[in-house]
Amino acid sequence: MATFVFCSLNRTARTAARRSLSSHLTRLAGAAEPPCSAHSPTLTLRWFSRGTRFMSQGTAGSSAARRTRRGALALGGAAAVTAAAAVAGFLANANHFQRAEMATRVSTAVEEKEQEEGDILERCRGFMSPPVTDISVLQGSKAEMRTRMELLIMETQAEFCRALQEVDGGTFKVDRWDRKEGGGGISCVMQDGKVFEKAGVNVSVVFGNLTEEAARQMRSRGKVLKGKDGKLPFCAMGVSSVIHPKNPHIPTVHFNYRYFEIEEEDGTKQWWFGGGTDLTPVYINKEDAFHFHNTLKEACDKHHPQYYPDFKKWCDRYFYIRHRGETRGIGGIFFDDLDAPSQEEAFNFVKSCARTVVPCYLPIVSKHLNDSFTDEEKDWQQVRRGRYVEFNLVYDRGVKFGLATPGSRIESILMSLPLTARWEYMHEPAKGTLEAEMLEVLRNPKEWV
Amino acid sequence: MATFVFCSLNRTARTAARRSLSSHLTRLAGAAEPPCSAHSPTLTLRWFSRGTRFMSQGTAGSSAARRTRRGALALGGAAAVTAAAAVAGFLANANHFQRAEMATRVSTAVEEKEQEEGDILERCRGFMSPPVTDISVLQGSKAEMRTRMELLIMETQAEFCRALQEVDGGTFKVDRWDRKEGGGGISCVMQDGKVFEKAGVNVSVVFGNLTEEAARQMRSRGKVLKGKDGKLPFCAMGVSSVIHPKNPHIPTVHFNYRYFEIEEEDGTKQWWFGGGTDLTPVYINKEDAFHFHNTLKEACDKHHPQYYPDFKKWCDRYFYIRHRGETRGIGGIFFDDLDAPSQEEAFNFVKSCARTVVPCYLPIVSKHLNDSFTDEEKDWQQVRRGRYVEFNLVYDRGVKFGLATPGSRIESILMSLPLTARWEYMHEPAKGTLEAEMLEVLRNPKEWV
Repeated sequence: MATFVFCSLNRTARTAARRSLSSHLTRLAGAAEPPCSAHSPTLTLRWFSRGTRFMSQGTAGSSAARRTRRGALALGGAAAVTAAAAVAGFLANANHFQRAEMATRVSTAVEEKEQEEGDILERCRGFMSPPVTDISVLQGSKAEMRTRMELLIMETQAEFCRALQEVDGGTFKVDRWDRKEGGGGISCVMQDGKVFEKAGVNVSVVFGNLTEEAARQMRSRGKVLKGKDGKLPFCAMGVSSVIHPKNPHIPTVHFNYRYFEIEEEDGTKQWWFGGGTDLTPVYINKEDAFHFHNTLKEACDKHHPQYYPDFKKWCDRYFYIRHRGETRGIGGIFFDDLDAPSQEEAFNFVKSCARTVVPCYLPIVSKHLNDSFTDEEKDWQQVRRGRYVEFNLVYDRGVKFGLATPGSRIESILMSLPLTARWEYMHEPAKGTLEAEMLEVLRNPKEWV
Repeated sequence: MATFVFCSLNRTARTAARRSLSSHLTRLAGAAEPPCSAHSPTLTLRWFSRGTRFMSQGTAGSSAARRTRRGALALGGAAAVTAAAAVAGFLANANHFQRAEMATRVSTAVEEKEQEEGDILERCRGFMSPPVTDISVLQGSKAEMRTRMELLIMETQAEFCRALQEVDGGTFKVDRWDRKEGGGGISCVMQDGKVFEKAGVNVSVVFGNLTEEAARQMRSRGKVLKGKDGKLPFCAMGVSSVIHPKNPHIPTVHFNYRYFEIEEEDGTKQWWFGGGTDLTPVYINKEDAFHFHNTLKEACDKHHPQYYPDFKKWCDRYFYIRHRGETRGIGGIFFDDLDAPSQEEAFNFVKSCARTVVPCYLPIVSKHLNDSFTDEEKDWQQVRRGRYVEFNLVYDRGVKFGLATPGSRIESILMSLPLTARWEYMHEPAKGTLEAEMLEVLRNPKEWV
């Protein structure tokens, strides 16, 4: 643990990174995700007043998304929206959706700052397990982005797990694991619960050396990084989750929020964030879709008005099952290689996103908790689960990267697979059915807000 | 259909191909399989007196397999065993296994020759559907390998489907499909039958032009093929099947037998065969394993004593789920890029293999038809089904090639997936259980004969 590669960005590197941003963005076709997993254990966080935050897998931006995103990032700072205004707008738009619950998210920037500066030991008490990095190391590097991000992902894991346990009545199994090559993670899984068929929330914090080839793959296509003797010290961390409920009227949710640092030969440190949250319903419920997307939009709008439209498109493009001609679900947001307008502002954006996970998802779970369903509806859910498996095993860059990486913890990577799935030959819902309506949306992604 | 790329091998090309064989074999790491599917419809073939033949997906030879295989192919002709001796040996070794059924396979070389030369129209009457190529075209090219192979795969499909229907009582759904770019196929699927959860038997016959890159991928690594203006006319055909029974005491079987032709710029025609049959039980039954492997061994031994040991190793190496550290099942045989000792002898070997499918598998099905099973045994089957899905979606070269190829018939490629599957987090059978015994064999492949 003491060999942690600390890589904060110095001024020169930051300027260089910003200078390379515009050419870099034109190549934003995708970046692989590292094997991510873990969580934190026993401090009673006021999660409901703070929301949550997480991590989605892989990358692939549409050219439209790339185009608009470039503009978005260039305008970055100027277009900032105040947190208060964003929260007000959020509440106005979500008025038919458990307004009381969401109002508790009104946490001001001041509150957040105070919380982040609070005693690290105290914060760690609320985690599902002690953090991956020794607490003493974290205490000695409070201001480093690596420390701040590790605490954020540990809190995100704890808050989401507790919210799910509360609604399910079950308990997460917490597995702490080490990575021989450096780092480790905390995997929390609840299987065959009352509400959730399978719920996994992972944190991972890994570090070591990458080959130049692996480093290029990790970031975005074509980015050349020079290492010392071909090796680049790196650190990658993230929180990642997939929740598969039993009831076909409760959608599956996935999120992932992650941070990378790579050190080049000349000491230049590259860093970037990635992430996203997306929903995979089995049946279309427009109110749920609006609530989910609008909650994300409000979080994005606090930071830049182009973030939501760009990252929404990117999400639709990324979670696409090419051989089926359909998206995995109704999307959400997805972004990668975010290294602008500044490390502080990018972190704040990621923090906002991560904190929307509980308010995005839990109200939908509560709403459909007691919905009745038929055997046919359960079958359709199982067929859609099969498509989920197809996406995750065939296309997901994070899964592919993880399976191909020696030392990965396979069970944490594949916890995203559902407990059960089904493949029916030539399955095609009859016209006019709710199943056909769902398929139509997956074949032609919609705007929900 | 009239644009079929006929590519029989002329003497010069054959000599050249043989000359390049030894260097070629050193690169036998793998060759992708084309999207394969289809079947023939209504002639009442005497399948039980002739066995069957099929097609397995992808390729990857162990260095040991490559080494021994090179020797095997160099000795090819010299080591031929007579069909009569092979059949006698087969019966001697399989004496505890429905000897009566297997005795009906005593078809002599003379009988086979007569049958192959029989009236094409008459033969087609036994298929699950008319062949992919127009019967008139087949009649006008009786002696071509393409014609002989298409008839072989159509018969294989029909014979296997009829054998399965007989034991299940259900009926295969027959779908005929065209490939826009050239050719097509016949997919036969029986779903949710009495005995079989999902049974798929496909024939495909596709042709058109390959890019040089695709041609290289199709064959083996490093093989450079020169096309006219970068394009190479090709023809690929095969029969392919996966059978998932309901009862966890009846194993899943897979086979695939295929043939390729590619025409180079200078008119040189490259051809090769590939294939294999492998078994995926949920519980180890040594008698079944011996019967299955021994039946394959006897078929191989008729052609060369090294074929079975080499292709058995190749099979264990190919059907390996790397991220789990386990094979998919207990193997069988697997080979690819077979273009020696001559086209005629290679075809005869493929024919022998294809005709062992029914005698390899059906006796095992019949034996366990009425075995009782517990919920726990069914659950373990479902977990193993999950691993089957992992192999097929993550590693199988045929599936990967098919999913990445525009114009592929996805439903035929993915008919190999089970109707139902399960993923349990951290599933590990208790020591000393039958489930642990199965896992031990998957982690350390055994010799069964």
